[in-house]
Amino acid sequence: MQYINLDKTTVYNKLAAAAKIDFNLRQNLSAERVLKCSVPMADSLVYNWAAKKVSDDVAALLQALADEQELIGKYKLLLDGEVMNTGENRKVLHQLLRGQLGKDVIADGKNIGDFYKEELERFSTFAEAVRSGKIKGGAGKKFTHVAQIGIGGSDLGPRALYIALENWAKKENLTPCLKAKFISNVDPDDASAVINSIPLDETLFVLVSKSGTTQETLANELFVKDKLKKAGLDPSKHIVAVTSETSPLAHNSSYLDSFYIDDFIGGRYSSSSGAGGVIISTAFGPAVFKDFLQGAHESDKNALEPDIRKNAAMLDALIGVWERNFLRLPYTAVLPYSQALSRFPAHLQQLDMESNGKRVNRYGGAIAYETGPVVFGEPGTNGQHSFYQFLHQGTDIAPLQFIGFKESQLDDDIVLDGSSSTTKLKANLAAQIVAFAKGQDDSNPNKQFPGERPSSLIHGDRLTPRALGALLAHFENKIMFQGFVWNLNSFDQEGVQLGKILTKKVLSGKSGDEALDVYSKLLRI
Amino acid sequence: MQYINLDKTTVYNKLAAAAKIDFNLRQNLSAERVLKCSVPMADSLVYNWAAKKVSDDVAALLQALADEQELIGKYKLLLDGEVMNTGENRKVLHQLLRGQLGKDVIADGKNIGDFYKEELERFSTFAEAVRSGKIKGGAGKKFTHVAQIGIGGSDLGPRALYIALENWAKKENLTPCLKAKFISNVDPDDASAVINSIPLDETLFVLVSKSGTTQETLANELFVKDKLKKAGLDPSKHIVAVTSETSPLAHNSSYLDSFYIDDFIGGRYSSSSGAGGVIISTAFGPAVFKDFLQGAHESDKNALEPDIRKNAAMLDALIGVWERNFLRLPYTAVLPYSQALSRFPAHLQQLDMESNGKRVNRYGGAIAYETGPVVFGEPGTNGQHSFYQFLHQGTDIAPLQFIGFKESQLDDDIVLDGSSSTTKLKANLAAQIVAFAKGQDDSNPNKQFPGERPSSLIHGDRLTPRALGALLAHFENKIMFQGFVWNLNSFDQEGVQLGKILTKKVLSGKSGDEALDVYSKLLRI
Repeated sequence: MQYINLDKTTVYNKLAAAAKIDFNLRQNLSAERVLKCSVPMADSLVYNWAAKKVSDDVAALLQALADEQELIGKYKLLLDGEVMNTGENRKVLHQLLRGQLGKDVIADGKNIGDFYKEELERFSTFAEAVRSGKIKGGAGKKFTHVAQIGIGGSDLGPRALYIALENWAKKENLTPCLKAKFISNVDPDDASAVINSIPLDETLFVLVSKSGTTQETLANELFVKDKLKKAGLDPSKHIVAVTSETSPLAHNSSYLDSFYIDDFIGGRYSSSSGAGGVIISTAFGPAVFKDFLQGAHESDKNALEPDIRKNAAMLDALIGVWERNFLRLPYTAVLPYSQALSRFPAHLQQLDMESNGKRVNRYGGAIAYETGPVVFGEPGTNGQHSFYQFLHQGTDIAPLQFIGFKESQLDDDIVLDGSSSTTKLKANLAAQIVAFAKGQDDSNPNKQFPGERPSSLIHGDRLTPRALGALLAHFENKIMFQGFVWNLNSFDQEGVQLGKILTKKVLSGKSGDEALDVYSKLLRI
Repeated sequence: MQYINLDKTTVYNKLAAAAKIDFNLRQNLSAERVLKCSVPMADSLVYNWAAKKVSDDVAALLQALADEQELIGKYKLLLDGEVMNTGENRKVLHQLLRGQLGKDVIADGKNIGDFYKEELERFSTFAEAVRSGKIKGGAGKKFTHVAQIGIGGSDLGPRALYIALENWAKKENLTPCLKAKFISNVDPDDASAVINSIPLDETLFVLVSKSGTTQETLANELFVKDKLKKAGLDPSKHIVAVTSETSPLAHNSSYLDSFYIDDFIGGRYSSSSGAGGVIISTAFGPAVFKDFLQGAHESDKNALEPDIRKNAAMLDALIGVWERNFLRLPYTAVLPYSQALSRFPAHLQQLDMESNGKRVNRYGGAIAYETGPVVFGEPGTNGQHSFYQFLHQGTDIAPLQFIGFKESQLDDDIVLDGSSSTTKLKANLAAQIVAFAKGQDDSNPNKQFPGERPSSLIHGDRLTPRALGALLAHFENKIMFQGFVWNLNSFDQEGVQLGKILTKKVLSGKSGDEALDVYSKLLRI
């Protein structure tokens, strides 16, 4: 297997040359193209790239790039347990949480796939016991609320998933349905406000930190324990931990139980582990979480397909590289036309920018091209009344990634002017794709829309747990493939370390930097 | 008054030349500089630009740019009621909502300042009557909840303000404290979920649409009315409108009352009007909203100062132009170290990108430089565990705007390892500024931090209504000044129109575009 920088591939210069030929969307976005540029994904999802500025010639070059950078081969190595997190000398096994697609992965004499399955079953059983009332709180009450304490990967993904499924679960009449809350920020106003909004004696806390040393999470754990004690409740009856077996939170009688992940699961990729699984399984039942995993597993399987026209994650990744390195566009907007996905862009922002916001290659070598873009987004139609002005008529172009579903989650709708709100939502989505692509001429330059704003669309029937799993894994795999193309290690995050070190110095009173001391004084630290 | 494009100013080429000289932050960010680069703002707020890549020479050129583009003169014209929204032939008067700084503004024989004051008093009286129980719901119950129906400017700003003050109000023991909710998206799952979470017989709905024709808002109004009727409640006893006097919602017996704004208040600038005022005054009391207006008014006053070293909004604006057009950085991240400001970046994203995401000047003429950047952000420390990897070690540089406060809102804290959570929060903030500016060398390239990432800091004592008003007006004024520098009309939003037109065509069944018809079919419209 060869690991070479993108600009050292033979296809690189061909792509650079191809970028000089404009693929005009106004001319090319035909009904035929929309039908043709369609890639089935897992569950009911379909990836449509018709409105991307990608000609057949460019698609062929992207296929050549996929082949030359051996994307499928590298993915298979990852699945087989090769050390793909080179900086930290770790395997990368979040796909294994969803099912096995490669060889048995053995570490320290242990079959890791079996370990993940056992933990899944352990926390499924635990969640059932909470839901049935077999496990109760310190005052003997059934748990009606579950609150996660975690930050970053232990917060954004699980929170986005919970929000995505909350209404779906209501509609399905899942019983019981525990209400979930999240405490993440070290700002004590966050924890305090959450605590004030829940019945402590009926709340189970899920403490998530792989290392067991995350500053914010430990501070919030102490905060919660203090409140529990003041309410006359035994904290050990109200907290369950998700951590690694070597952390201080493991095998610790301060908790109801502990569920384990290992170093092969990166924080931002941990939604499929107990980090996302305990709260989702407790809130909605283990079957819901297993459906989610099944959808993700199907996406993982699809990502093994070598033909880019049949592999949505790989094609999406390559089009992203095309836009970033050859069309030179520094951002990507994620625009789900689904209120349930309101925090999905925030999770993707983390997933993408923390994985591929890197300036050295997987060996620490220099790279001479741009890597991961800025990712941002809000749900439609809300975004239309916010930043779409920039998207339509700004001086710069942001590639767009639309997501939409045929059906609402709650099926509670109203007809106004001959159409339901769901139909209006979808009509807006379809209209925006074409408005961005084709624009509109007007003699008034202020009303002129240049168009040529590229977008893709992921569409599905309904946002179910399975569709959600498929969707999340699609993006995880897209980001993985982009890391392979850019020759990065997408699985470490050294960029977060310096801030931690300096924070500790400030807190110890010895910052070692005069300017930092003045900032500290200004903030009255 | 001259209105010329940025690249036609005499100082433009000097700035371009200055951009070739690097102002090294690692060398220059001294204790002395942090103390010196400090501009008092309204309330307790201070703008600090020490960690920006702005030398004294560049600051002098930015002052020259401010003078040449007559930023203060144009601001004064705006305050005096000149038609600054050229495309729509409208005055721009959101500052007048907060107090009068210019001449009397007369339109159609009416003193607009008096009109705004009367409306403020009218909805203050209404809010008091709701809070005291003088105005009750259809079933004779006191209102305990208030839910806003609106989108874009009628949603993001008011929502951000409510979230920013919710905990503060709790701490102040304001009685009563109505719980606020927001319905915005045309996705019916949004309205349905909100309705399911509130006691309908105790909920006042605030319907906000200036035109009274916003598709999403009318659909959600019908949705809400339908639910009220099904609950046996008279909708006219549960809804109050905020609209223009010429809209179908005005003087309409379907509502408890209607409060008015006019065409001189742009949607995204309407937080200081009834669009934000009715819900804030009802939830927390009119005095809270008036304090907010007072803080904003102080910011507006400060923005009249011609010396950029004393005018935080103007300096912030000019540094943004310096970074966008001369350092060529296409984004800006807003990073409030305050959970209460969790949705403030989303509002600023709208404010900025909808105002200055423009590609023609105020006369519809071409421009040959970049305008408004992409704005994104999440609260710290959460963001540190998400996209900060990109910010520290990505291939591209995003200028940063930090915000932080000395005190928490709830004053409910815990000490761990010798420091409170509030202190940890602030230590992280101070540390990040210096980490971004100075970086850190390491023999391992993966652990190397290049630094030279510019940031500013707005710091204050505590996030109170007054500080919040000052903060919001700062950004509104910053964006206004940038629009003047770029010679834009920052007050229209033609870029949102095409999508609306195409949506209507889709809904009427005659899209006129074959590709659009296929997209519609894929989404089963």
